[in-house]
Amino acid sequence: MTTTRRSLLLAASLLPVIAMAQPAADKKHRLVIQVTDNDPARWTMVLNNTKNAQADVGGADKIDIEIVNYGPGIHMLMKDSPVAERIAELAKTGVKFAACQNTMKGMKLTKDDMLTTVDYVPAGVTELMKKQEEGWTYLRP
Amino acid sequence: MTTTRRSLLLAASLLPVIAMAQPAADKKHRLVIQVTDNDPARWTMVLNNTKNAQADVGGADKIDIEIVNYGPGIHMLMKDSPVAERIAELAKTGVKFAACQNTMKGMKLTKDDMLTTVDYVPAGVTELMKKQEEGWTYLRP
Amino acid sequence: MTTTRRSLLLAASLLPVIAMAQPAADKKHRLVIQVTDNDPARWTMVLNNTKNAQADVGGADKIDIEIVNYGPGIHMLMKDSPVAERIAELAKTGVKFAACQNTMKGMKLTKDDMLTTVDYVPAGVTELMKKQEEGWTYLRP
Repeated sequence: MTTTRRSLLLAASLLPVIAMAQPAADKKHRLVIQVTDNDPARWTMVLNNTKNAQADVGGADKIDIEIVNYGPGIHMLMKDSPVAERIAELAKTGVKFAACQNTMKGMKLTKDDMLTTVDYVPAGVTELMKKQEEGWTYLRP
Repeated sequence: MTTTRRSLLLAASLLPVIAMAQPAADKKHRLVIQVTDNDPARWTMVLNNTKNAQADVGGADKIDIEIVNYGPGIHMLMKDSPVAERIAELAKTGVKFAACQNTMKGMKLTKDDMLTTVDYVPAGVTELMKKQEEGWTYLRP
Repeated sequence: MTTTRRSLLLAASLLPVIAMAQPAADKKHRLVIQVTDNDPARWTMVLNNTKNAQADVGGADKIDIEIVNYGPGIHMLMKDSPVAERIAELAKTGVKFAACQNTMKGMKLTKDDMLTTVDYVPAGVTELMKKQEEGWTYLRP
């Protein structure tokens, strides 16, 4: 066996130990934020966090942010939401607001009840899991 | 092209695939959920989340779920828990409910105080850390 | 130097960038804990968690812990904090307490308002994101 080949096998054996994704210096950050409280003060904090994160990494184009609302958190994305204007502003910068359709079914909500900027996911919990599996970092404010 | 070079290219092509702590298409999802609130409404949400996650990924056999209860969350796993029946049902599908023995010691609880389906971990906080270190995704509803 | 060998060295140099979800057996654990509630009972739980985690992994030298306080959680790190003594004790063991300067600006707080053992980060939310990107595990008690 050549030294080179041994090195390759060694490298391969290390692969399961490493793992996990995150941005190299030139890659976009990816952040998924969970909202599960029916609490406008917390929603405001989440929206502040989002804006601060964009500013702190050097601009909205440097970071993908998805805010996943489920359970009691679904209220943040309804038409009568007290933070509707801020959601619309952030959506314009590329932030995605995802409503859990399992929650909506349980609460008998339809898309007509929701803000127009809202995206839909089948289940908030699996959306949060899958994003993490893809290497997004997770925040639960 | 030499064998060595082909191996290198193969190794390089694998990097993006392994660059995340989660399942390829044919692997099980692994989700660890934290319960630290003494709040039956939240417990119900967690149990709904668990059921929804199983359904959404195609069945309980496609996902390992461990629910770690510590601090005030320990009450969910006590004999008088209002969600005892649902816990028993989910335990039958393979969901693991883990009680923090540090919390139990602090609250002078023994295994006699707990539901029979409960598993035990020395410390909830390190259980949550270690599961993440092993590549499980983390949810804090 | 052969091309093959150069490729190997290149591959090796990439490893730190893509790597790191967790410690190998002989590496330090790394845990970042979020505090966003103005709730002394929860602060006490967080400090208990910190102490338990140190004990459970075999000592404070086996684990790096950073506690990031932002939003309403900033109060934990103020001079009148009811848990000031425990913070001072844990800081001596190497635990880092990080205050979010965005929050401080918003609340018109200066470093004179804060405990002397406190460290500062520009934004709590990005600190939590970046630590996770570097492979730290995340806890939100």
